[in-house]
Amino acid sequence: MFQFTVTSKNARARAGVFSTPHGDLLTPVFAPVGTQATVKTLTPEHLKGIHASLVLSNTYHLYLRPGDELVRDMGGLHQFMQWHGPMLTDSGGFQVFSLSNTRKIDDDGVTFKSHIDGSTHRFTPEKSIAIQENLGADIIMAFDECSDPNDAAYSKIAMERTHRWAERSLRAKTRADQAMFGIVQGGVNPDLRAESARFIASLNTPGIAIGGLSVGETKNEMHRTLDVVTPLLPENKPRYLMGVGTPEDLINGIARGVDIFDCVLPTRLARHHSAFAPEGRLNMMNASFARDTRPIDETCDCYTCQTFTRAYIRHLIVAKELLAGTLLSIHNLRALIRLVAEIRSTIMTGTFESHMEGWLARWGGNAERKVTGK
Amino acid sequence: MFQFTVTSKNARARAGVFSTPHGDLLTPVFAPVGTQATVKTLTPEHLKGIHASLVLSNTYHLYLRPGDELVRDMGGLHQFMQWHGPMLTDSGGFQVFSLSNTRKIDDDGVTFKSHIDGSTHRFTPEKSIAIQENLGADIIMAFDECSDPNDAAYSKIAMERTHRWAERSLRAKTRADQAMFGIVQGGVNPDLRAESARFIASLNTPGIAIGGLSVGETKNEMHRTLDVVTPLLPENKPRYLMGVGTPEDLINGIARGVDIFDCVLPTRLARHHSAFAPEGRLNMMNASFARDTRPIDETCDCYTCQTFTRAYIRHLIVAKELLAGTLLSIHNLRALIRLVAEIRSTIMTGTFESHMEGWLARWGGNAERKVTGK
Repeated sequence: MFQFTVTSKNARARAGVFSTPHGDLLTPVFAPVGTQATVKTLTPEHLKGIHASLVLSNTYHLYLRPGDELVRDMGGLHQFMQWHGPMLTDSGGFQVFSLSNTRKIDDDGVTFKSHIDGSTHRFTPEKSIAIQENLGADIIMAFDECSDPNDAAYSKIAMERTHRWAERSLRAKTRADQAMFGIVQGGVNPDLRAESARFIASLNTPGIAIGGLSVGETKNEMHRTLDVVTPLLPENKPRYLMGVGTPEDLINGIARGVDIFDCVLPTRLARHHSAFAPEGRLNMMNASFARDTRPIDETCDCYTCQTFTRAYIRHLIVAKELLAGTLLSIHNLRALIRLVAEIRSTIMTGTFESHMEGWLARWGGNAERKVTGK
Repeated sequence: MFQFTVTSKNARARAGVFSTPHGDLLTPVFAPVGTQATVKTLTPEHLKGIHASLVLSNTYHLYLRPGDELVRDMGGLHQFMQWHGPMLTDSGGFQVFSLSNTRKIDDDGVTFKSHIDGSTHRFTPEKSIAIQENLGADIIMAFDECSDPNDAAYSKIAMERTHRWAERSLRAKTRADQAMFGIVQGGVNPDLRAESARFIASLNTPGIAIGGLSVGETKNEMHRTLDVVTPLLPENKPRYLMGVGTPEDLINGIARGVDIFDCVLPTRLARHHSAFAPEGRLNMMNASFARDTRPIDETCDCYTCQTFTRAYIRHLIVAKELLAGTLLSIHNLRALIRLVAEIRSTIMTGTFESHMEGWLARWGGNAERKVTGK
């Protein structure tokens, strides 16, 4: 259980297999986000249809609603939401810092007010692990503190606390059927990131997460941070870049040795009528699609593209029909899952680097595209 | 094409087969409503999964948005929404009278303002048929005028206009692959209803609709009206009770010789968190379901009941997740489709009448349950 095997490497890009109690993950892998025990607007059948393999859920949200003890009593998260593949929960740390109202951090933990009803709650490393054990995901996270990347002094304090909390999380953990990942922090300071990578690697957790990115730093800073961190991590552990990201972030992350990604972007874009298309991101409400008989992407194998025209999807959006969000979520998620699967194939055949420029041209924005580091 | 065969009869209840260009309908049949070329929140795959056979769409809505000519140019409604089974469109008459703003009726037609943007439009029998020919459903409706059932004088005027409009609709019709049904009107006045039934029957359309019910009259009045109308209709034509209804309305309608029903109730209830359950209609947001590990209905074969607990559905509702509406729509529609299929089986085996009291006890409210008439 939780064995990770790197089966191919192209420079720093890796293809591997990570074994979990609910199945093997072929890495690199992109995980849809099911914040509240559901990937918004999709059934588990839809998730199977887009070949999702790993699904993330959020500890902070499920603790508040419906409550982790209720989820445990209902048989755990897999049973509750009827997703029987691998699952991952975060620690709740990021949401406490980004979503909740007034919060008070001390060395022991964080006191915060619920964004739903203002009620007061307290998370500690021990509490976060207890919640995640109640939820029962295959992969769980150490409780961490995510700092403002541009505040160097705070980044150091938060990193050091994250390290102490990682040790406490590890001691608090009791379930053998869950893999806990430590989380590397340190803002965008290369020295802090290197220190954090070495420390977290020393804990010998079955995988290592990289937190505190895609939170306001530049693309250059994200890439430079990965260039510092991943070379310091053990080869035989999967690396999870939390909350990232855009298609170009996935390409750049894989090029820098990342194995696992998650992001709300595909489903959030779907709710805002935006689709990943060959031409780039399209606003599907645009009048130019009113009589467009093509699918969103003629090369896409998803249910939406195999079934419906752009004209129909545009009609659903204009008519305010919720099915539009479902169909766009299916497509956008499948687009990223397919991109990562295609990247994996090129890593297996040793051609990743020669494809990379093409992918960045197809998927990239204006971000830095040059990969540095060893 | 459009042949109707009554295969079994129990008193006035009929089981039959109605052939359409997109497949045979086994009657009695309940049609989900896809107002804007989509059964709200469901994909065509979901519709197949609940064994939907006939789907209704609304002429008024599709004329306004995206426009019937656009739908025609996209290959027609079946192709546009990717529902390849039998389809039915209404005439737009009912929506003009119930949804649009200021309207002006004259013998030629109706001028009305769109409920979307206030723009002015005009429907005539010829226009309604032209729109329905552009949409391309298998079963289309004559343009009619639905009166206030409690206004006897207006009911007579509206009925007579409906008759003239039915003749004009019939003359306007050009497509051989569409069956146009005339519509019986006459409010709740038995004499008017009898006159209307005889007149519409004389037009020899391949099916006959009964309009102007479930619009504010009592259950008794609905039943009495059916008791007057259906005995005057030819045996060898399907009868369609428009916009009806509740489970008990279906049972009572079938008992009075109705073959086709449609209603937004199952999907509307779903959006309001209400489910058809063995105990009756349940508000699934109720706290009593928070830890209920049962499906909504243990006897139901739908995806929702085969997969999810009441506790999970309640969580989705409380967390304001749209998937709740999808899962409840699947179940509520399947519940009515299954009810009608079970009723059909008992008609085939000659046991409908002996089951009827049990069904009404299971599904009925406080409405009149006694069937009268020949």
